[in-house]
Amino acid sequence: MKQVFEIKDKNIIYKLLDSVEYGTLAVSHNNEPYAVPLNFVRVEDTIYFHGALSNKKMKILAHNPKVSFSVVQNHSLIASFFSSDEGLACPATQFFKSVSIDGVIEMIESREVKAMMFEALMKKLQSEGGYKSFSDEAYDNAIKATAVMKIVPHTIRCKFKFGQHLTDERFEMILQHLEERNSEIDRETIYMMKLYYK
Amino acid sequence: MKQVFEIKDKNIIYKLLDSVEYGTLAVSHNNEPYAVPLNFVRVEDTIYFHGALSNKKMKILAHNPKVSFSVVQNHSLIASFFSSDEGLACPATQFFKSVSIDGVIEMIESREVKAMMFEALMKKLQSEGGYKSFSDEAYDNAIKATAVMKIVPHTIRCKFKFGQHLTDERFEMILQHLEERNSEIDRETIYMMKLYYK
Repeated sequence: MKQVFEIKDKNIIYKLLDSVEYGTLAVSHNNEPYAVPLNFVRVEDTIYFHGALSNKKMKILAHNPKVSFSVVQNHSLIASFFSSDEGLACPATQFFKSVSIDGVIEMIESREVKAMMFEALMKKLQSEGGYKSFSDEAYDNAIKATAVMKIVPHTIRCKFKFGQHLTDERFEMILQHLEERNSEIDRETIYMMKLYYK
Repeated sequence: MKQVFEIKDKNIIYKLLDSVEYGTLAVSHNNEPYAVPLNFVRVEDTIYFHGALSNKKMKILAHNPKVSFSVVQNHSLIASFFSSDEGLACPATQFFKSVSIDGVIEMIESREVKAMMFEALMKKLQSEGGYKSFSDEAYDNAIKATAVMKIVPHTIRCKFKFGQHLTDERFEMILQHLEERNSEIDRETIYMMKLYYK
């Protein structure tokens, strides 16, 4: 049994993308990789983000639109002694959810689509509202001066690791230890473990 | 004034690297980037991580050892209305700490250095202990079967964004809003804002 689940259900992937504040974009120039963290927003099945027109990432993308985008939601650290009976460190791990999207960048030129993206980004990161609609012409210059991009994906992989590969005995030992430690993230991890165990 | 601080103090950079559980490694093959999240550990001025010998990242690194490694510690989301007097969304942002390391990967072959790295990684992610020392021969096969790498850096950039570019008036407005919202991350953000404001 594999140590990670492949998640195929779009709604589960969307929920993860919508609950994570940033991802890391990898770009490459002359086969030299460059990683940059970014706030982003998902709209339908598309990832959007924005940036200053002049920065390093934009210059690289002008030469090579290929990208790889990685999003992680970390869950509990699983101590080796939760399930090790011989005192070895090997079972130590961390449970997680992740999404990895490979594709190419497409620049957004339309004011309308840019405004739609900013509305969605604000709704995600400032759900309490309290700002003028981006259709307001007060935003015209700012929207013009900001690059907005989307990822046109060729591969989307979502992985969950919650101990589904473990024997019943080890799985129960980990559950018990997490229930004892009982931090907020442990409670979320326990929920996920029970939801996905075979 | 720039929106981010460049942090040059090694001890501050080390403290950040030691408090973050994972980073994202970008590699590139035929100018096609690939981003992968990893647990890691810093020992002195070096970043180490490990992985299965057979995975995609390792295959790419065998062709091209160039990497870019990105670590982020997100702080408060700063709502636009914290400091906007005209209701525009533009001041919305997120404060953060980040480290970006560009360099090349070097494979570790020595059992001793590999064991040192595993000890350090366990100490970081399982500080409560409870496992046998990696000098124990019970680990011999596992250590042999696991790739351990370090980054030989040519550039390390650390950036903090905590509102240091703002006017006194806007800075105070944000502080007040954060004090009212008063979440755990807001309290850490307030501490950092006060520490770094001009």
